[in-house]
Amino acid sequence: MHNSGSEARHMSLKNLDILFNPQRIAVIGANEDERSIGYHIFRNLIGKGFKGIVHPVNPDMGGVQGVEAYPTVSDIPHPIDLALVATEPQHLPAVLGDCGRKGVKGIAILAPDHAARIGRPSLIRDRIRQLSALYGCRVLGPNSLGFLRPAINLNASLYTKLPQRGHIAFISESGIFSTEFLEHAISKKVGFSYFISLGAKQDINIADTIDFLGGDGSTRAIFLLLRTINNGRRFMAAVRNFARTKPIVVVKPGRGGSYSLLADPHLPAMEDLIYEAVFKRAGCLRVDDILDLLSMVETIAKQNRPKGKRLMIISNSIAPTEMAIDALHAMGGVLAAPGPR
Amino acid sequence: MHNSGSEARHMSLKNLDILFNPQRIAVIGANEDERSIGYHIFRNLIGKGFKGIVHPVNPDMGGVQGVEAYPTVSDIPHPIDLALVATEPQHLPAVLGDCGRKGVKGIAILAPDHAARIGRPSLIRDRIRQLSALYGCRVLGPNSLGFLRPAINLNASLYTKLPQRGHIAFISESGIFSTEFLEHAISKKVGFSYFISLGAKQDINIADTIDFLGGDGSTRAIFLLLRTINNGRRFMAAVRNFARTKPIVVVKPGRGGSYSLLADPHLPAMEDLIYEAVFKRAGCLRVDDILDLLSMVETIAKQNRPKGKRLMIISNSIAPTEMAIDALHAMGGVLAAPGPR
Repeated sequence: MHNSGSEARHMSLKNLDILFNPQRIAVIGANEDERSIGYHIFRNLIGKGFKGIVHPVNPDMGGVQGVEAYPTVSDIPHPIDLALVATEPQHLPAVLGDCGRKGVKGIAILAPDHAARIGRPSLIRDRIRQLSALYGCRVLGPNSLGFLRPAINLNASLYTKLPQRGHIAFISESGIFSTEFLEHAISKKVGFSYFISLGAKQDINIADTIDFLGGDGSTRAIFLLLRTINNGRRFMAAVRNFARTKPIVVVKPGRGGSYSLLADPHLPAMEDLIYEAVFKRAGCLRVDDILDLLSMVETIAKQNRPKGKRLMIISNSIAPTEMAIDALHAMGGVLAAPGPR
Repeated sequence: MHNSGSEARHMSLKNLDILFNPQRIAVIGANEDERSIGYHIFRNLIGKGFKGIVHPVNPDMGGVQGVEAYPTVSDIPHPIDLALVATEPQHLPAVLGDCGRKGVKGIAILAPDHAARIGRPSLIRDRIRQLSALYGCRVLGPNSLGFLRPAINLNASLYTKLPQRGHIAFISESGIFSTEFLEHAISKKVGFSYFISLGAKQDINIADTIDFLGGDGSTRAIFLLLRTINNGRRFMAAVRNFARTKPIVVVKPGRGGSYSLLADPHLPAMEDLIYEAVFKRAGCLRVDDILDLLSMVETIAKQNRPKGKRLMIISNSIAPTEMAIDALHAMGGVLAAPGPR
């Protein structure tokens, strides 16, 4: 029992790695209609420098955007690492079952208004759990916008542009905010290792993602746009583990004010205080404003986390140096003195 | 003997139709190197609205620009209507042999500097004749830039843009001039039914193309950029047949002057006089300047060819009417008078 559990966990982690580093992708629901998400998801993958292979899946079309299509994912005569699902919600149960039988390693369910449109969300939730339990298949979403991997020119998402490659991993629970953030980051030339939209987190959650990124050599910092934490203990453990070696910055709307659209007016301020305590104990930095902190995060990503509290300040003017020393003390730092020689 | 000859001719015509209206295309030599023609030819076909299916063929890559590739055209598990050949010249004999065995219906050999780079042009010429004789396969080029079919969003060429759809078929023997002409035509929003670069005409020649376009309902006029005619009799017959119902306009550099780069300085003026006579007898209109005539050709394409010589002129001013009548008489026309009531 313990063995098979640890084996399943190992397989789950391995499949998470395959999901985010796919060689062969199926776009289920790819088509020629510019108003559909299946059109854009497929278009983002073709002719954009991604070195893997992408298959459109569409039961009604022999070819999509010039590329041979297959009626179902099972008809593709190759193993599939990642299936991007862009079908209408009513086809989801059948599509997910098909992916399971095919042995697809990872699935991203992309649909911005999935929750509103699906008739029986519990049916989908059960199907996703089955996929995970039976086949070790990992599922991003539903309601995910997908993910970006600039280093391998992979845009497996509904985002229209790929930022430059870099060392920040961005994990978002919000669709709209992540889109705005990405636009801003691109305009400021901030680079990313990963840009992940988690969506409804029915399988892959924040802790899984942080664990996975902890083992990724190209990621030097995590930037997390959070709405809710389902499993506090798992979250704490994952953040603590990551924050031991690399910085992790959290934006959690809910203090009221600038993110009032996202904040739940019925939420007691108490809950936010608990989050605040959790972040502090886990060792991550909470900030209030996403956009102005971009350049700070970029700086963090470019250097290693300081090992201690001591900072040496070299300056050519007294007044600003005094201000810097005050700020250092206020944050709990200590002024370092040069040793002998 | 006569039977099999007529059958081969029928098959040749049918395959010409398939070549210009392909359902499934192979791009031999498609790749990821932006400096290569194989990169651009494949890119022009994917995600641009063409409803057929396009397969990259490359022995060294599993996928090209995100699309599954096959090592050779024979490995594609479907019949191929058109193979666009973008390989290095030294691979041409093997590639053409492979296309023949596969039963490819049409081939376009695209390479701007093919003639200069190929070691044994006679080997290629013989192979092309074999393909035609043994398999009825039709070959455009070598040295062709390919062709455009705006009505079906098909850019099977090295031209970077597709003009709008229209009723003029453009046939060119010149690469550079056709590229400039296309740019100009696009800027003036002139539409085309076909835009064909013939290249070295080792199989498909001008007469074949005119015959084919004579049967095409969407073509109302031909615009021909000519350099040499190999088979005068066939050319005359084809032009005469087409010109019976639709206008055909020829630009044939060689009078000296504006096209001095193309004109052969050793060519006696006599030869040009012969061409002049041929054009006149065949019933096509010769013009000297390509670009200024675009709007005239567009006008021709929009109306049927006049059945007789009579023209009625309706005007509100005497002087310009007299000038128009003079011009009509100079061109051999007759002023028409309205009948009784």
